[in-house]
Amino acid sequence: MDQSSVFDLAAEAAASNGGNNDPLLPPARFVGAPQKPSKMPYYKYVAYDKQVPFDYPQRTWPTKRLHRAPRWCSVDLRDGNQALVNPMDSERKLRFWNLLISMGYKEIEVGFPSASETDYDFIRMLIERELIPDDVTIAVLTQAREHLIRKTYESLRGCKHAIVHFYNSLSVLQREVVFRKDKEGCKKLATDAAKLCKKLESEAEGIDISYEYSPESFTGAEPEYSAEVCNAVIDVIKPTPDHPMIINVPATVEMTTPNVFADELEYMSNNLKNRDSVVLSIHPHNDCGMAVAATELALLAGVDRVEGCLLGNGERTGNVDLVTLGLNLLVQGIDPQVDLSNVPQIRKTVEYCNQVKISERHPYAGNFVFTAFSGSHQDAIKKGLEARHVAAERAGADLDKFVWLVPYLPIDPKDIGRSYEAVIRVNSQSGKGGMAYLLKVNHNLDLPKRLQIEFDKVVQRYADETKREVKDEDIWRLFKNEYLPVEDNGTTAAGHVVGDSADESLKPWGRLKLLNLQVSSGEDGSDTVLKVKLLDRGADLKNPTERVISGVGNGPIAAFASALNVLGLTVSVNDYAEHTTGAGADAVAASYVECEIGEEPESEIIWGVGLDSSTTTSALKAIISAVNRHERKSAPSEE
Amino acid sequence: MDQSSVFDLAAEAAASNGGNNDPLLPPARFVGAPQKPSKMPYYKYVAYDKQVPFDYPQRTWPTKRLHRAPRWCSVDLRDGNQALVNPMDSERKLRFWNLLISMGYKEIEVGFPSASETDYDFIRMLIERELIPDDVTIAVLTQAREHLIRKTYESLRGCKHAIVHFYNSLSVLQREVVFRKDKEGCKKLATDAAKLCKKLESEAEGIDISYEYSPESFTGAEPEYSAEVCNAVIDVIKPTPDHPMIINVPATVEMTTPNVFADELEYMSNNLKNRDSVVLSIHPHNDCGMAVAATELALLAGVDRVEGCLLGNGERTGNVDLVTLGLNLLVQGIDPQVDLSNVPQIRKTVEYCNQVKISERHPYAGNFVFTAFSGSHQDAIKKGLEARHVAAERAGADLDKFVWLVPYLPIDPKDIGRSYEAVIRVNSQSGKGGMAYLLKVNHNLDLPKRLQIEFDKVVQRYADETKREVKDEDIWRLFKNEYLPVEDNGTTAAGHVVGDSADESLKPWGRLKLLNLQVSSGEDGSDTVLKVKLLDRGADLKNPTERVISGVGNGPIAAFASALNVLGLTVSVNDYAEHTTGAGADAVAASYVECEIGEEPESEIIWGVGLDSSTTTSALKAIISAVNRHERKSAPSEE
Repeated sequence: MDQSSVFDLAAEAAASNGGNNDPLLPPARFVGAPQKPSKMPYYKYVAYDKQVPFDYPQRTWPTKRLHRAPRWCSVDLRDGNQALVNPMDSERKLRFWNLLISMGYKEIEVGFPSASETDYDFIRMLIERELIPDDVTIAVLTQAREHLIRKTYESLRGCKHAIVHFYNSLSVLQREVVFRKDKEGCKKLATDAAKLCKKLESEAEGIDISYEYSPESFTGAEPEYSAEVCNAVIDVIKPTPDHPMIINVPATVEMTTPNVFADELEYMSNNLKNRDSVVLSIHPHNDCGMAVAATELALLAGVDRVEGCLLGNGERTGNVDLVTLGLNLLVQGIDPQVDLSNVPQIRKTVEYCNQVKISERHPYAGNFVFTAFSGSHQDAIKKGLEARHVAAERAGADLDKFVWLVPYLPIDPKDIGRSYEAVIRVNSQSGKGGMAYLLKVNHNLDLPKRLQIEFDKVVQRYADETKREVKDEDIWRLFKNEYLPVEDNGTTAAGHVVGDSADESLKPWGRLKLLNLQVSSGEDGSDTVLKVKLLDRGADLKNPTERVISGVGNGPIAAFASALNVLGLTVSVNDYAEHTTGAGADAVAASYVECEIGEEPESEIIWGVGLDSSTTTSALKAIISAVNRHERKSAPSEE
Repeated sequence: MDQSSVFDLAAEAAASNGGNNDPLLPPARFVGAPQKPSKMPYYKYVAYDKQVPFDYPQRTWPTKRLHRAPRWCSVDLRDGNQALVNPMDSERKLRFWNLLISMGYKEIEVGFPSASETDYDFIRMLIERELIPDDVTIAVLTQAREHLIRKTYESLRGCKHAIVHFYNSLSVLQREVVFRKDKEGCKKLATDAAKLCKKLESEAEGIDISYEYSPESFTGAEPEYSAEVCNAVIDVIKPTPDHPMIINVPATVEMTTPNVFADELEYMSNNLKNRDSVVLSIHPHNDCGMAVAATELALLAGVDRVEGCLLGNGERTGNVDLVTLGLNLLVQGIDPQVDLSNVPQIRKTVEYCNQVKISERHPYAGNFVFTAFSGSHQDAIKKGLEARHVAAERAGADLDKFVWLVPYLPIDPKDIGRSYEAVIRVNSQSGKGGMAYLLKVNHNLDLPKRLQIEFDKVVQRYADETKREVKDEDIWRLFKNEYLPVEDNGTTAAGHVVGDSADESLKPWGRLKLLNLQVSSGEDGSDTVLKVKLLDRGADLKNPTERVISGVGNGPIAAFASALNVLGLTVSVNDYAEHTTGAGADAVAASYVECEIGEEPESEIIWGVGLDSSTTTSALKAIISAVNRHERKSAPSEE
């Protein structure tokens, strides 16, 4: 090559790298001390706009919004498969194929039959066993050499329609170091390939062949040159609106921010010949972690079709993830035109076939993406779910179909086959929201706000001590131990409510135990007379005595508070809440009382909880719970 | 609430969802049959622009390019930590802290000390053990309640400077369902918080306090309203250019394409008061998989500062990944101002502390991101590395510092502590490039192109049969078995070259074996006389006889070909290549010969390989290798 090498030009450009010292920038704003230069060799790298200078001020895509699904093409069985340490065997390939068909993909690239016997055999199996539905088109990749094209057409014998996909690399770098050809030479490779495909078409008799051309390594080539080559290919193939061809622009390597890719694609869309006969496609990779964004911005820029892989498998950092793209459309109110209703099953199949695990934080599919550990998030989710429930009822709408608006949950987990179960999880960083939610969802207990605050301290202490996730069973054990008396026989007073068995890790506690009660009242309850038989085990639980006490008040709660005076206890009830924990004969009432026990200024504000099938009994048990908790605190420690 | 509920408005908007039937769009272009509507409930979801109508035609960011690193703030110890199933214990927190300090981060959010004892204790430890360098500023999150702010200030006692970070949620949805306040009410929550922080500032005596305010759930709020609230907070805090405050805009939930986020941030940047006294920050999450892109476009839009986590840990799908962002800058020739030169160590520490694994395809850090299984990629990488080498030599430059341009490798693996070793890997989808590369790098054998094609068929057959990755040792075994005679004693003729031991899985083969040779020639080698003693074991290896043959030619190769006539073999050498496989006394010559054996039209073109410290011997061994291979093929199968 006589002209300047790409390395010379790049080295020159890199030599002007300013690191962070661009004199045209306003001073950097920050609080505290400045950042320091690192020792990273930024001087080795050339900014994308110096490698491929391009601007497209005519761009219109930034004002646009997504309005429909693109044409999808899965390249899992080709580009995805070739990036696997252990490529799929035929059992795995068939399983993946069946998944793609069941999801509704209508274009599937199935392999490189002229280069791989495995691919060839798989394509023959699909055709011979008639596994390709009539509305599905397979695509095959080939290099543009005569014997390879012949072998490719041979692999397709008996197929109804197929896409023959040929490509060559156009980047400045590869022109010089790989192909050692100039622009004209590389363009000729493309048009020669197109001519050869057309020439050999007779070998594909009976197959409805469409063509796909990829200007490979597009992101490293001048867009003007790529358009020129694509137009030359279009001139050879001569697509029509009724029989279009695909021009597929690969971000073979993602080299910069996605706004640049969108500019390039809007330019391509506006500068391809016979645009109404061309399906403009992209094939993005994820080297900079922006493939999903690059795809969506390119769709705004006029792209018709997207090649990608389920859950982002593919060479190096992967191809763009078709699942995320589809669900990003769904949450914009757009039908993705593929069935993503069972993401856990999709994930399971993909992980089995690829033998590669996805991350716990993978959008939509990762294990953690519907969990909320933060207290304020948990609280907002809880309120949001309730508000949606209320709004759906008010609108007379089916909750399952009602508009989805819940803080921190951009999608209804149920719509993609996941459940709410794992949404709320509690660790030492959580506030009271999560604990309250779990007690409500799993134990039907709807704690009043101030009781939540009280109990939250217990949970927080436990979380800080254990430094692990606090599971639902931990919360329930802590709650029982804190509020529900554990009787000598090892069962809780609430034992029958939630169906849990005796918890032997809990110690018995509680001075008072309700044995029975009699209530009588007149017309309006204001003269309620209450007689209660209690077991009073004393502060140390060692001297059980049966006591019968009675009191009068405007209801059993007031009467019981009054009766407790007999035992030397000053109890007043500040707040009271009660709800049923279910429906039917098994329903149990949960009562929550906030008591003030003792005389000012030594009095204590303390909550008690009672569970019983009788609302009266549960209320009295709640007061006893508060009294027992107060006494436990005052009593000498047992340990 | 008397006004229309957010649910009513959303349900109305969702009811107008067209799925994919927007009548304003041009007809969709595709090849083959159309996609079908899915059963996904797109009618439940409201497009972002209907939730938060906003346009910003004044945008300038699409024409801009990145030119410097933003201010980084790691929130690993706070937002990252709170998203863990098992939050870090103090040992893990300290390890993470040390990593962040060693990398050069100057702002680190360390916790929520008023909400978590663990966080409180950790902050106290940092301060009391003097672990905070003078140029590092810690940030603490707090809710704006008096006792919580007091506790926050208490946690900071003895700290030199700190950022107090308060927040409240502004989204349309949360205003209604969580806070049940109108716009004014939520604004007042923010300004009351700011006032309270200022009022209690005296409790933080001796600490240089800066403030950070986050309009939480910004992506669900009207940008105009968020700016109004932020400006009201700025009015209270009264930052100055010398003592700025941080306005931190969270994409609490990523809700749409990143161009919209960039528009919103350019609007914010242009509409905040006292802009020169405000550090405009973002805190992106990754719900749609576009957090990296959203961050980079927001930087184009005028953002000064980014909060994120190493390798993208954080609630749900994670916070934006600071490692990817930093390295994306590096490959644009920009100093990231943090040390990312040892990505494997960063990954190891992060995975240990978080107890969460990253994906194999995670940009820059995943196991597979520097692997190339595709043959054409392998070939291009091989040529690219060679071309760069040549260019650096020509320029007289240090290769380690020379401009990096290699196809499919956007970054030099060495610059981030990774090696080339794993770059080229071979599976059934690979072509000859990978195999050739591995033989070159690991065994110093630089196979001529046509020999690559010949041997590639052997590797392909093996890959198609085993359907697994073909490891370097497999290739080496296949190569030895194909070209290098395995002697009866179990060692190969090349046994001493690459230090590998006898491979018992290989069977002995090869009719001829070189025992010794004598060469004599005159002035110019044209009359070279060669005498060779061979062991001729016969076609079935069962009848070993020593034979002495001689021949004359213009060099030992020609002379040997001539001598072989004595054995009834017609051998002509079509091509010949030789190179040394190393330097110094241990250096071995590798010879490759392409022979035509037999008479036309039955002759066979076949390669042979010889390795020996003597170039003459290695050449003759190569011819013997070709002859033996030819004989092996003609011989009856042993199995």
